[in-house]
Amino acid sequence: MTTAAVLGAGSWGTVFAKLFHDAGTEVVLCARRPEIVEAINERHENTDYLPGVGLPEGLRATVDPAEALKGADIVALAVPSQTLRENLRAWRSLLPPDAVLVSLMKGIELGTGRRMTEVIAETTDAPADRIAVVGGPNLAREIAEGQPGAAVAACADEATARRIQAACMTPYFRVYTNTDVVGCELGGAVKNVIALCVGIAAGLGFGDNTRALLMTRGLAEIARLGAALGADEHTFAGLAGLGDLVGTCSSPLSRNRTFGENLGRGMTLEQTIAVTKQTAEGVKTSEAVLELARKHGVEMPITEVVAAVMHHGMSISEAASLLMSRSPKPERYGV
Amino acid sequence: MTTAAVLGAGSWGTVFAKLFHDAGTEVVLCARRPEIVEAINERHENTDYLPGVGLPEGLRATVDPAEALKGADIVALAVPSQTLRENLRAWRSLLPPDAVLVSLMKGIELGTGRRMTEVIAETTDAPADRIAVVGGPNLAREIAEGQPGAAVAACADEATARRIQAACMTPYFRVYTNTDVVGCELGGAVKNVIALCVGIAAGLGFGDNTRALLMTRGLAEIARLGAALGADEHTFAGLAGLGDLVGTCSSPLSRNRTFGENLGRGMTLEQTIAVTKQTAEGVKTSEAVLELARKHGVEMPITEVVAAVMHHGMSISEAASLLMSRSPKPERYGV
Repeated sequence: MTTAAVLGAGSWGTVFAKLFHDAGTEVVLCARRPEIVEAINERHENTDYLPGVGLPEGLRATVDPAEALKGADIVALAVPSQTLRENLRAWRSLLPPDAVLVSLMKGIELGTGRRMTEVIAETTDAPADRIAVVGGPNLAREIAEGQPGAAVAACADEATARRIQAACMTPYFRVYTNTDVVGCELGGAVKNVIALCVGIAAGLGFGDNTRALLMTRGLAEIARLGAALGADEHTFAGLAGLGDLVGTCSSPLSRNRTFGENLGRGMTLEQTIAVTKQTAEGVKTSEAVLELARKHGVEMPITEVVAAVMHHGMSISEAASLLMSRSPKPERYGV
Repeated sequence: MTTAAVLGAGSWGTVFAKLFHDAGTEVVLCARRPEIVEAINERHENTDYLPGVGLPEGLRATVDPAEALKGADIVALAVPSQTLRENLRAWRSLLPPDAVLVSLMKGIELGTGRRMTEVIAETTDAPADRIAVVGGPNLAREIAEGQPGAAVAACADEATARRIQAACMTPYFRVYTNTDVVGCELGGAVKNVIALCVGIAAGLGFGDNTRALLMTRGLAEIARLGAALGADEHTFAGLAGLGDLVGTCSSPLSRNRTFGENLGRGMTLEQTIAVTKQTAEGVKTSEAVLELARKHGVEMPITEVVAAVMHHGMSISEAASLLMSRSPKPERYGV
């Protein structure tokens, strides 16, 4: 029987632990705060991150990483992206030597520009065939309620991807395999930048047609960057690219979309930041992605105007007219 | 100066004539009904199909196809898909010998399974380098209002695609070129089948996550069919694939989505048909597409259950459980 540990009990970590449990995998969820552990173990609810969603009675939580990691075949990491490196340093000695390390995170490390699996590789010295990522649309609450969902598990070693697939696929959650780790990670990170732009367009009063345009051309520029970084272009038409983008851009709960919407409605950047409770990851990611794009000579017009609006005082109207006045292009170029 | 004729003054034909006009192309719009011609010429409004949307004063309409077609360099066809063949037979002798023939339609001919450009080729004997298709998200009213939009013009001959691009690209409407006619046409037709399924899921109460799953896997099966028919798989990640799908599945105005939603809410097929004013094209297309898929040995699980629900009495719950219980798969297969 497969044993899994999930480190990090935010909404996605908690739901992923439920997926392991429902798939018949033995799982322990590790949370930092004792009150969350108690709520999960006693009341079968993550009162902080998924209030009102019943969790299985058999799903066990602990504050002790050593207890969670003991004998784990699969270790799923669901901590905030920017804390991964220091967390892994603390946990390194506790990781079972043959465990598969799975990133559930969608971010790029600030300062270094590293993807999460790169941070895992650098901190743990695990080989590529034991490092994986799970991507796709993950509106945690809907999956927790058992609505049909899906994800893609990617690892350079396909057999490892299939082990993860077998460990978390349930009757309500399909898991597909892929060997393109870079593509699956980039999709999840860059989609937040596109979601900001989709939000701005909605705030300006534009409808479904403009949204479809931005999402499609947004995905085209993610694919161009991906190709330059060695990803498989097809990955971006899959769950971690298109799927995650559709989920994020449709949901009124998306922080990035909402952030953009406030800007589009005429709030200043300062006002928007002031009314935004949690971080809209796309704001910082836009600069990190743009740096990568420039380094590799990739055209990313949407990312470029988003970064300029967020960090260099470009006005929304200037951004819109820049995007629409680009020279005529073939649909596919630069890949 | 380029001269264009648009045959068919429904909402999309009318908006496309406006695009030609706004791009500086001389254009005549041909309508079947004199009252529409009068409304456009006198009141600058298509009162039947785009009530309340002001059209340019310089946009001229006529009931006379000969007048519209005289000297036209580009002939855009925007009649109902199932009437194209007979319409073209009537117009054939009026077509300027070197005119580019552009399909704006999204359908498959019933009985023959032919795409619209195939019908054009068969009825006019025009060579492939003069037959094109324009695809993409086309929520006509939003584009008519000048909201940012985009489309892809596809022709086997790229120079022809660029001529169309130059003739209809405006500051609010970007046009991209592509040489994959088959892919651009299939995307527009099959997306209606996926939209039916997305509607059913919404009617069942499922949220953005399930929608993202269905759209992504729907696009994957369209790409598999496309590959079997000689299309370029990348086209489906573009405006005529993903873009059109996103536009259709997001819009509450989509007939196909609404049709599915009524079914998902528990209406019978008969009740749903009774409350549906215009045809939901996906209902018939689902069988035509499934036939194509079987002929070419392509797996299309979503199309299969949609066709079974629409034509063979399968229940919604049976359809959902069939989709979710398929064997574990790699994300990309069969292409």
